[in-house]
Amino acid sequence: MTPTTGVPEILARTREAIAPAMVAAVDRLDPDTRLQVSYHLGWADAAGRPLSAPTGKGIRPALALLSAAAAWSDPSVGIPGAVAVELIHNFSLIHDDIIDGDTERHHRPTVWSVFGVGSAIIAGDALETLAHQVLLEAPDTPGGATGRGAAASAALAEGTAAMIAGQAMDVAFEKRRNVSVEECMAMCAAKTGALLGCAASIGAVLAGAPTATVGALRDFGAQLGLAFQAVDDLLGIWGDPATTGKPAGNDLRQRKKSMPVVAALAAGGEEADELRELVLGPAPDRVGHLVGAIGEFDGAAGPPTGGDPVPQEPLSTDQVTRATLLVERCGGREWTQVRAKAHLDAALGALQRVRLSALPHRELADLAVFVVERES
Amino acid sequence: MTPTTGVPEILARTREAIAPAMVAAVDRLDPDTRLQVSYHLGWADAAGRPLSAPTGKGIRPALALLSAAAAWSDPSVGIPGAVAVELIHNFSLIHDDIIDGDTERHHRPTVWSVFGVGSAIIAGDALETLAHQVLLEAPDTPGGATGRGAAASAALAEGTAAMIAGQAMDVAFEKRRNVSVEECMAMCAAKTGALLGCAASIGAVLAGAPTATVGALRDFGAQLGLAFQAVDDLLGIWGDPATTGKPAGNDLRQRKKSMPVVAALAAGGEEADELRELVLGPAPDRVGHLVGAIGEFDGAAGPPTGGDPVPQEPLSTDQVTRATLLVERCGGREWTQVRAKAHLDAALGALQRVRLSALPHRELADLAVFVVERES
Repeated sequence: MTPTTGVPEILARTREAIAPAMVAAVDRLDPDTRLQVSYHLGWADAAGRPLSAPTGKGIRPALALLSAAAAWSDPSVGIPGAVAVELIHNFSLIHDDIIDGDTERHHRPTVWSVFGVGSAIIAGDALETLAHQVLLEAPDTPGGATGRGAAASAALAEGTAAMIAGQAMDVAFEKRRNVSVEECMAMCAAKTGALLGCAASIGAVLAGAPTATVGALRDFGAQLGLAFQAVDDLLGIWGDPATTGKPAGNDLRQRKKSMPVVAALAAGGEEADELRELVLGPAPDRVGHLVGAIGEFDGAAGPPTGGDPVPQEPLSTDQVTRATLLVERCGGREWTQVRAKAHLDAALGALQRVRLSALPHRELADLAVFVVERES
Repeated sequence: MTPTTGVPEILARTREAIAPAMVAAVDRLDPDTRLQVSYHLGWADAAGRPLSAPTGKGIRPALALLSAAAAWSDPSVGIPGAVAVELIHNFSLIHDDIIDGDTERHHRPTVWSVFGVGSAIIAGDALETLAHQVLLEAPDTPGGATGRGAAASAALAEGTAAMIAGQAMDVAFEKRRNVSVEECMAMCAAKTGALLGCAASIGAVLAGAPTATVGALRDFGAQLGLAFQAVDDLLGIWGDPATTGKPAGNDLRQRKKSMPVVAALAAGGEEADELRELVLGPAPDRVGHLVGAIGEFDGAAGPPTGGDPVPQEPLSTDQVTRATLLVERCGGREWTQVRAKAHLDAALGALQRVRLSALPHRELADLAVFVVERES
């Protein structure tokens, strides 16, 4: 594997390069929304007093700048793309925290839990629109082809649409007892892979790179997204709360059908059955099932629930401990580790398909390894 | 005033013209989101069974097609713009219903109350992105200048950003005791005027019309938006529930600081004071106020509430009746009626600034009069 020294420098350099454009973009928001977004980004406390709280690592903007450089352009060409994907990513975090009912992110209360659900919905909506404004106003390279900002905006809309569809699948899965490994991976490809694919190629789009180059970088990002999600799901069960910023065993407590759980359930056998009953509750008895069906024939049923009911209350600490052990025994942990490695290899392979500028190529690879080896 | 006969035909013609493109756009959504959007648009019931429920009148798409025609182009050139503004409008309705806690729209349960808040957030997000996809993929007129879809997308993003900022102001105003008439009108210009201004000019943008033409049509739409909101606010207090589809006196019940209320409060005098106490609750006593201030100096205060507290529970039916009378006696009803007429006149005046194609010019004017004279 490529050594990962230097990645903190890449991330710090990116933060510095995009900071003025990020501030300028957020400054365009109305004062109330600006406060909520500044709070979310760790730039201010809830009363608007400046601070510098640790938040995301900024993987997506780093990919965006490196993709411009890898396509033989100045990294700064990728800045509008880096800002746009960072805005979209944060729009999705703010809305996801409402949808999932999460009250804490990076050891701080989430936007909706501080400012209310209504304001958090509006803040996310505003960031989604702002991202397109940034791109559609991006200056075209002097002497270059016109419409690169529009092409980048179209690529961003495509990535965002896939991300939102993935989030819809995720919500639908929560209500279902059976989710196959294939469905789980398709959901992760949409929810995480599409935006990372966009991030890793948007700088090349802005640089006017050939289709093959843009495609290879997009595939790199999409595969990296799957590896990223695999690691995220591992950390959601076995991560150290001190470094992840989330409660221990958070995903199992919330009965999330993450990769390790879905893989473990698919393994079959007694322990998988015990895990299924623990995470999804006892299988519904036939009588209750029939009553539900009759209700539907009556035309009295509400919207389709997508299958049998799954309990909503969180698992107890003892149940989380037992479920964690069962996921591991059923091979869910190892399966996910293998998938993380396989998607990392596929990502690195995609970079070999075209001729990229050597140093940014190396840094993209370093960043990918860092993503998979991270502990938070 | 121009006669309004023919407006139902204009709206029906628009519905028919954009139907295939609307269906094609919604078909791109993931199955769960597609169901929620189809339900919201009145195309299906909550279980996905086809139906045709009455929903919005489709003013915005009609403006979009007419603006292409007014700019001497075929109305069909405006179709991607018409679809995009209709998608943005419906995204805002779905999210607004969550934010306002409204359970009914057009006599049907709102999306969030049927499918849950999480799914409704996702459905709105998906429509916001879809609108940009539709525009960024719009074919340029053969032989015409390139980048018209991108210009339309940029105009839509600008209109959407203003609309969202207006919604943020609206939410902020709910927590405040004092909102000036100027602030109220600025909020309406952002929340309603900006997207109507976009709708009334986006067809001209897609037609490649000169800046002056686009500007005149945008001003027409923005002024029409203020007239539209004035009428909406009048209907929100004095409208017939049978035609509006909302409970009688809905806006006063919810203590909304709509135009008639803000104008009435600004009138001053005993009856305005009574109205203020009824709608905003008794003025906070000085002791409570001081305690709040000390809390803030302690650094113990939460996020800024934007002023003194306003009660949140709905008004009783008797209180709504009394408040309705007080708004009228303080001149709030007449003031709003005068404003509706003044903004309609300003809208019609904007159309005179440039040379537009005669028939669509006349139909735009008819539509504007219809909007102000509507009763639902």
